[in-house]
Amino acid sequence: MSPQTPDDGAEVSADGVPTVYDLADGCSLDDVERGEYYRATVNGVVAYGVFVDLTEGLSGLVHESNLLGDYDVGDELLVELSEVREDGDVSFDEVELADYETERVDAGESVAVADLEDAVGSTVTLDGEVVQIKQTGGPTIFHVRDESGVVPCAAFEEAGVRAYPEIELDDVVRLTGRVEMREAAVQIEVDSLDRYEGEAADEARERLDDALDEYAEPNAVEPMVEWEAFEKLRPDLERVARRLREAVLEGRPIRMRHHADGDGLCASVPLQLALERFISEHHHDPDAPRHLLKRLPSKAPFYEMEDVTRDLNFALENRKRHGQKLPLLLMLDNGSTEEDTPAYRNLAHYDVPIVVVDHHHPDPDAVGPLVDEHVNPYLHDEDYRITTGMMSVELARMIDPSLTDELRHVPAVAGLSDRSKAEAMDDYLDLAAEKNYSEADLRDVGEALDYATFWLKYNDGRELINDALNVACDDRERHEELVDFLASRAERDVDKQLDAAMSHVEHERLDNDAHLYRIDVENYAHRFTYPAPGKTTGEIHDRKVEATGDPVITIGYGPDFAVLRSDGVRLDIPEMVEELVDEIDGGGVSGGGHLVVGSIKFVEGMREAVIAALVEKMADAELDEDLAATRPDE
Amino acid sequence: MSPQTPDDGAEVSADGVPTVYDLADGCSLDDVERGEYYRATVNGVVAYGVFVDLTEGLSGLVHESNLLGDYDVGDELLVELSEVREDGDVSFDEVELADYETERVDAGESVAVADLEDAVGSTVTLDGEVVQIKQTGGPTIFHVRDESGVVPCAAFEEAGVRAYPEIELDDVVRLTGRVEMREAAVQIEVDSLDRYEGEAADEARERLDDALDEYAEPNAVEPMVEWEAFEKLRPDLERVARRLREAVLEGRPIRMRHHADGDGLCASVPLQLALERFISEHHHDPDAPRHLLKRLPSKAPFYEMEDVTRDLNFALENRKRHGQKLPLLLMLDNGSTEEDTPAYRNLAHYDVPIVVVDHHHPDPDAVGPLVDEHVNPYLHDEDYRITTGMMSVELARMIDPSLTDELRHVPAVAGLSDRSKAEAMDDYLDLAAEKNYSEADLRDVGEALDYATFWLKYNDGRELINDALNVACDDRERHEELVDFLASRAERDVDKQLDAAMSHVEHERLDNDAHLYRIDVENYAHRFTYPAPGKTTGEIHDRKVEATGDPVITIGYGPDFAVLRSDGVRLDIPEMVEELVDEIDGGGVSGGGHLVVGSIKFVEGMREAVIAALVEKMADAELDEDLAATRPDE
Amino acid sequence: MSPQTPDDGAEVSADGVPTVYDLADGCSLDDVERGEYYRATVNGVVAYGVFVDLTEGLSGLVHESNLLGDYDVGDELLVELSEVREDGDVSFDEVELADYETERVDAGESVAVADLEDAVGSTVTLDGEVVQIKQTGGPTIFHVRDESGVVPCAAFEEAGVRAYPEIELDDVVRLTGRVEMREAAVQIEVDSLDRYEGEAADEARERLDDALDEYAEPNAVEPMVEWEAFEKLRPDLERVARRLREAVLEGRPIRMRHHADGDGLCASVPLQLALERFISEHHHDPDAPRHLLKRLPSKAPFYEMEDVTRDLNFALENRKRHGQKLPLLLMLDNGSTEEDTPAYRNLAHYDVPIVVVDHHHPDPDAVGPLVDEHVNPYLHDEDYRITTGMMSVELARMIDPSLTDELRHVPAVAGLSDRSKAEAMDDYLDLAAEKNYSEADLRDVGEALDYATFWLKYNDGRELINDALNVACDDRERHEELVDFLASRAERDVDKQLDAAMSHVEHERLDNDAHLYRIDVENYAHRFTYPAPGKTTGEIHDRKVEATGDPVITIGYGPDFAVLRSDGVRLDIPEMVEELVDEIDGGGVSGGGHLVVGSIKFVEGMREAVIAALVEKMADAELDEDLAATRPDE
Repeated sequence: MSPQTPDDGAEVSADGVPTVYDLADGCSLDDVERGEYYRATVNGVVAYGVFVDLTEGLSGLVHESNLLGDYDVGDELLVELSEVREDGDVSFDEVELADYETERVDAGESVAVADLEDAVGSTVTLDGEVVQIKQTGGPTIFHVRDESGVVPCAAFEEAGVRAYPEIELDDVVRLTGRVEMREAAVQIEVDSLDRYEGEAADEARERLDDALDEYAEPNAVEPMVEWEAFEKLRPDLERVARRLREAVLEGRPIRMRHHADGDGLCASVPLQLALERFISEHHHDPDAPRHLLKRLPSKAPFYEMEDVTRDLNFALENRKRHGQKLPLLLMLDNGSTEEDTPAYRNLAHYDVPIVVVDHHHPDPDAVGPLVDEHVNPYLHDEDYRITTGMMSVELARMIDPSLTDELRHVPAVAGLSDRSKAEAMDDYLDLAAEKNYSEADLRDVGEALDYATFWLKYNDGRELINDALNVACDDRERHEELVDFLASRAERDVDKQLDAAMSHVEHERLDNDAHLYRIDVENYAHRFTYPAPGKTTGEIHDRKVEATGDPVITIGYGPDFAVLRSDGVRLDIPEMVEELVDEIDGGGVSGGGHLVVGSIKFVEGMREAVIAALVEKMADAELDEDLAATRPDE
Repeated sequence: MSPQTPDDGAEVSADGVPTVYDLADGCSLDDVERGEYYRATVNGVVAYGVFVDLTEGLSGLVHESNLLGDYDVGDELLVELSEVREDGDVSFDEVELADYETERVDAGESVAVADLEDAVGSTVTLDGEVVQIKQTGGPTIFHVRDESGVVPCAAFEEAGVRAYPEIELDDVVRLTGRVEMREAAVQIEVDSLDRYEGEAADEARERLDDALDEYAEPNAVEPMVEWEAFEKLRPDLERVARRLREAVLEGRPIRMRHHADGDGLCASVPLQLALERFISEHHHDPDAPRHLLKRLPSKAPFYEMEDVTRDLNFALENRKRHGQKLPLLLMLDNGSTEEDTPAYRNLAHYDVPIVVVDHHHPDPDAVGPLVDEHVNPYLHDEDYRITTGMMSVELARMIDPSLTDELRHVPAVAGLSDRSKAEAMDDYLDLAAEKNYSEADLRDVGEALDYATFWLKYNDGRELINDALNVACDDRERHEELVDFLASRAERDVDKQLDAAMSHVEHERLDNDAHLYRIDVENYAHRFTYPAPGKTTGEIHDRKVEATGDPVITIGYGPDFAVLRSDGVRLDIPEMVEELVDEIDGGGVSGGGHLVVGSIKFVEGMREAVIAALVEKMADAELDEDLAATRPDE
Repeated sequence: MSPQTPDDGAEVSADGVPTVYDLADGCSLDDVERGEYYRATVNGVVAYGVFVDLTEGLSGLVHESNLLGDYDVGDELLVELSEVREDGDVSFDEVELADYETERVDAGESVAVADLEDAVGSTVTLDGEVVQIKQTGGPTIFHVRDESGVVPCAAFEEAGVRAYPEIELDDVVRLTGRVEMREAAVQIEVDSLDRYEGEAADEARERLDDALDEYAEPNAVEPMVEWEAFEKLRPDLERVARRLREAVLEGRPIRMRHHADGDGLCASVPLQLALERFISEHHHDPDAPRHLLKRLPSKAPFYEMEDVTRDLNFALENRKRHGQKLPLLLMLDNGSTEEDTPAYRNLAHYDVPIVVVDHHHPDPDAVGPLVDEHVNPYLHDEDYRITTGMMSVELARMIDPSLTDELRHVPAVAGLSDRSKAEAMDDYLDLAAEKNYSEADLRDVGEALDYATFWLKYNDGRELINDALNVACDDRERHEELVDFLASRAERDVDKQLDAAMSHVEHERLDNDAHLYRIDVENYAHRFTYPAPGKTTGEIHDRKVEATGDPVITIGYGPDFAVLRSDGVRLDIPEMVEELVDEIDGGGVSGGGHLVVGSIKFVEGMREAVIAALVEKMADAELDEDLAATRPDE
């Protein structure tokens, strides 16, 4: 942008008209050239001429012999730079131009955010979009992104007073300022900040968007294993990877909600790592990973009103207090069902994009219109066997391919945790074996994760979980000892629970010849401890299937709920729930799940009626030895 | 305070005795005058005279020709200022005075806290009261208030060492220092800090208190609607407004506890806004609104021991760690009953003023002696129809009258939320209509608030609630969409609850011909979800009243509680509870409420006996069609 | 370390070889001497010679006449310091030495951490161990300890980039830097930081360890009362005091878990105070007490999986984010039983020393191998009568003997809270009487603590608890009023609970003639309020013992638990529980406690069977009037 011609006369534009430069604040001697024309303002009148400013900090004399008129302080005139002395003193001659073009000169060279570290101490010009405006007690901090990253830019008007109040979030701006190291990291001290308007804005935004598109492009990674079924999901995952990278580049926080179990952790932990690294690379604020990414375990199998209310309130507070954008919500191993829709509807009034990556049986008609991306194997005629953890590891690699080796064992853990019968499981186990994990080891890792997250409740337990999954963990031995402890403890607790429960399991043979087992988990299992009723019921079911063989149905019931598992019986739990809703007056029935694994809620006083009706339906179901209660959801 | 006479000779007091000035630290050439007398200390002896200090940073020569005696470093003498040269050099002559008066000269001009922003860079003197003493790792920060506001003043002794240890909280002081912009905002760097003692202290405090009285004066606002009944409460509200303004001016934090329902939010949110603005105006610390005001929703209809224990502990921690005063407790839409008194008694050992604004049936004998202000329509022979939200909006306006327009629709929301049958409701609805709110809209806002606060639990949900109430919300469309979503969701949840419950409602006709409806909300309603038992019972009651007409009593009972609603029956629930306490041995009965709306607690094993006895009493009650179960409290 | 000889020629070593000094960064003119030899590097070549650096910031000319060879920038040569002019200019002569020894010169004098405050502004050398490495957005902060304390040392490489990446936690280092006052407190700005290697490291570490041993030495305090039984524990307590002092000196955080009752608070609060003071003394970071010590009340009578999971995660987060060492776990009035061992095993994979001070009946075989110290009177054939509070007060005094007077009344409170029948109780009561506490007062303090901590739940309630115990409390009157309020409120709540419960207590006479009282605390006591079931049962038991005299057994049972108290019956509850586990199939029985005081858990549906079997065993027990249910544990 600055005049770069040698000093062989003033610059002349393509149409032969001379150019007059109008210097922005922050310009210095580096930005001017002898022989060029400038717009100047009189800042002092002396006996022998006038002093003029080209900009604050760049002044010089027009000697009376080189003046064409009489001027007072504040008058504007056109000058030619005639001399720059060694001591920095500058002289001008006034010029009169019949016709000329004005060109704005920004201080400093244009530089990309990614390259700012090399420009510390110099004044630069930056084109970008405002992604956060934080008013501090001192300056206003504008976080500005270009295609390569985000940098905080401090503008000071008056302590605590909003600088450049005309600039709003999402504006495309040109700013000039000095690059400084500010405690935290690189920061720009703003000299000038202008919003692009009209066509120029459109152009600038287009340039930015094009460039961002390029930076947001996910890495093309080779599949970890060859698996045709999985490949159908790859385009979906690439779109999600792009969205997540975009969110980071745009300075939009990401709020990750995941199912608090083994697969849910295999899904969320690798993505957390990949995103944190990507954020660190593209944000000059060293606290950015912590401020821009939250991982939140969800106990419920759907997005509860309480959680969404908190999430939204948290987001609004951050917008208010820190000028952050509202977040992108990333649902992992969760979020595909009709039960999630009230929460999604709550977010619909705010700018909160929703991305779902899940392998639970989806209700695409209900969920689809409310979310921005929905990746689910069922949408491609595949099923739960492609677990969320498997998908997320690929996602994480698309965001940061250097993680491939570190995550090699994770899909196998995910698959075993969710009992995936996928054909690719063998390949995943082989991959894990390269890191010296046996199948039993991986199973233990899954149990350890499940156990640890149970006790961590709503805490993400970042370090402990990383150690248990051996992701971002620098001590393999500690990882192994920890997994060994947690997994064996989990097993002992399951045994203890089943010791109490097994002798109270009631058995009957249904008309369709299926074995029905019932257990009152409220009365015959310990409460508020590990394993919770869902897992307790699943463990009982597994033992019964092993003992009696198919067909087996197990019902674990508490005061106002029942958990269902079946093997070898063609149940359709969602349909059964719907029928019960109609049939049982005042039962308050709701629930759902997969075809053969699910749960039902009802009002306490109607438990007997609901379960009786349910069992009747089960007795009518056809047998089908291919159907197995593969995924225990608590 | 500084000598202002022209330099035609030394100042002479009224009784003809000359004045010798004793300069405080921080005084400069601006504070001295040629020809005046000063107290000086020798700081150097040279061949040609002595150098003396009038104060640190203000020194000069007494030439040997102008010396009367021999002096060593540290000696004191009286001097006359004889010359101030252009370069700032100062000369003195020693003087000998038979009789003189000493006058202390403080550095800088006296300035009010409110005007400090205009004095940045200069040295000022400030009289005020110390309202917070925070020891940082560096300086000690004294927050000093005068009548116009509070300013942080940094005094440095040694890093982390308490400066001026003799100065305590609540002392009246005179301080001198330089006004600076310090990251956050205006701050004074202390040069000297002296406590007023004895009579001078009394005078200074009186001046301060008088001035504070003036600043604390609530704004005289026109009533929003003409309403005679309400006017009886106005003097009470003015006293509360004054107390709250005083608290802000004194730097005392305010802890606001409010009933977590529609009316409670209509009461607390406007006050929160008004107080935050008032704090911002009068405190130079930009974080002051966040540090000095907390809004805390309370689920229980009274101030629980757990809450008061936390509040008190929080206050003591803040005093310890941040040197804050203990807070003023402001109870809104809550706090009028005997059940609140144990909590109040807990606070009585600490300096925590208590202010209650409530419209629940009060127990003034129990509460009155424990609180500083108690505003309640029942104390003026009015009743719940004047809702707390209505009162609070007036209060908020007395604190910040500019809010009038923003709050115009709030009293109507409050009234509808609490089913106020006030004569003024029409006027309030008209006011809201000016902002394009229909009655249905306002009802929805109330339901939306109730629903949102239910899921927010103990979080104030500031931004979300502001959006739902359209207070400090800049986007009407978002407000409407949000309310629409929350209200319709609340309605759906109520329907779902009643779908389960209605068919289990038991009916009987009492001897007094009243319809009695009973519902077991533990067994026939969903637990831990919206609506909670109180509201569920209320909704059932309403439907029954509509269906059968008066007289109707509804009892919703759980294992150890019952919620009561009645229309058209002259119940006196508080009295009934008292009788049950006496009659049911080992029942553990407690509870209360309004005459015809209330709740009872008992031990689980005695439920049957308690409810049977209760129903017997109800059967004896007279009918009275004027009595309606107007206020649903959960 | 620096050459201290007069300038009568170059230093010569013992074996006659001259010494050449190699100056470390940060050395200045103070560290050099005319006539000594130095290693120099050419930093400029001019017409008349070369300029050389001895170190950054210490340069001078070697005139061509004094040069022996030709040099380019970067070349090294040996020089003799020939002249230091008044203006600081330095000249050298090049020298050629056939044989010489090199000696490193560190900038600044060696100084102990404890003395750094007197060295502000000067450059010092410090030998120490790295105890924390915190990477900030700016410098890397190494916390370095020597024998006398810990100081933060800031090393700057590049903003947010780890300085001295080769230095790790626990390394023994020598560092040189300038001592500065940095907002918070004393800090060293690092000029150089070197790890000791090999033998030098061993020597340095040995020096440090020896010195630390000395500093960690507990104070030899006179026993507060003469008590032979207690003296057996003193060596154990001294070892613990040493461990705790060591932890502080090593910069290791301490995480204190204590039983949330009167004795638990008497144990933890004095130690908290003593440790905070000791930390303040030895750490230059004023926030160190807050960062290095947490007091955490535990509701359960053992260390729950949930708590240890949180603790561990918290510790790992702090290591990750703040570079802290993992903590020492201090279990107080808790932690001696088999039930604690799963939690301890969880910690075993990490460097977390465990110290237990408790007076509950221990299982030393289970606990011993997992903990580093286990102090318990039962390990010395003493019993619960030596309460944890009594032991902790002695511990606190060994850490900070100046606390003796402040803690004089605490052992008596501890003893009364836990109904200690110790012979020394009279002496403790006498000690308390010196501070004007009657036995009734002390009992009230215990009740007040119990009541306050109940409502504080998981919050330590630091200030409130300090006021209630009169430790670090500056207002005796407030203390008394607060205790009076809390104790009387606790009594009222107990009365209220018993009013409901007493008439439902069932009585029978067992075959062994013992009175058996049973109370269903779920159905006949208020839930989720004070007193909880354990205390409620204890209070009922006490009243029955008083009413009927020995032998009395009381069982308070809820849905899945029973609390047991007995007087005058030779029960062995741990044995009974073991038998029930075997006998009751599917009962899910667990539990334990002391011989005559304990609790049992079971699954809800088996309550009747479990209690029936239990009562049968009780009926078989021998009577023994010496056995009393002395310690109520909830």
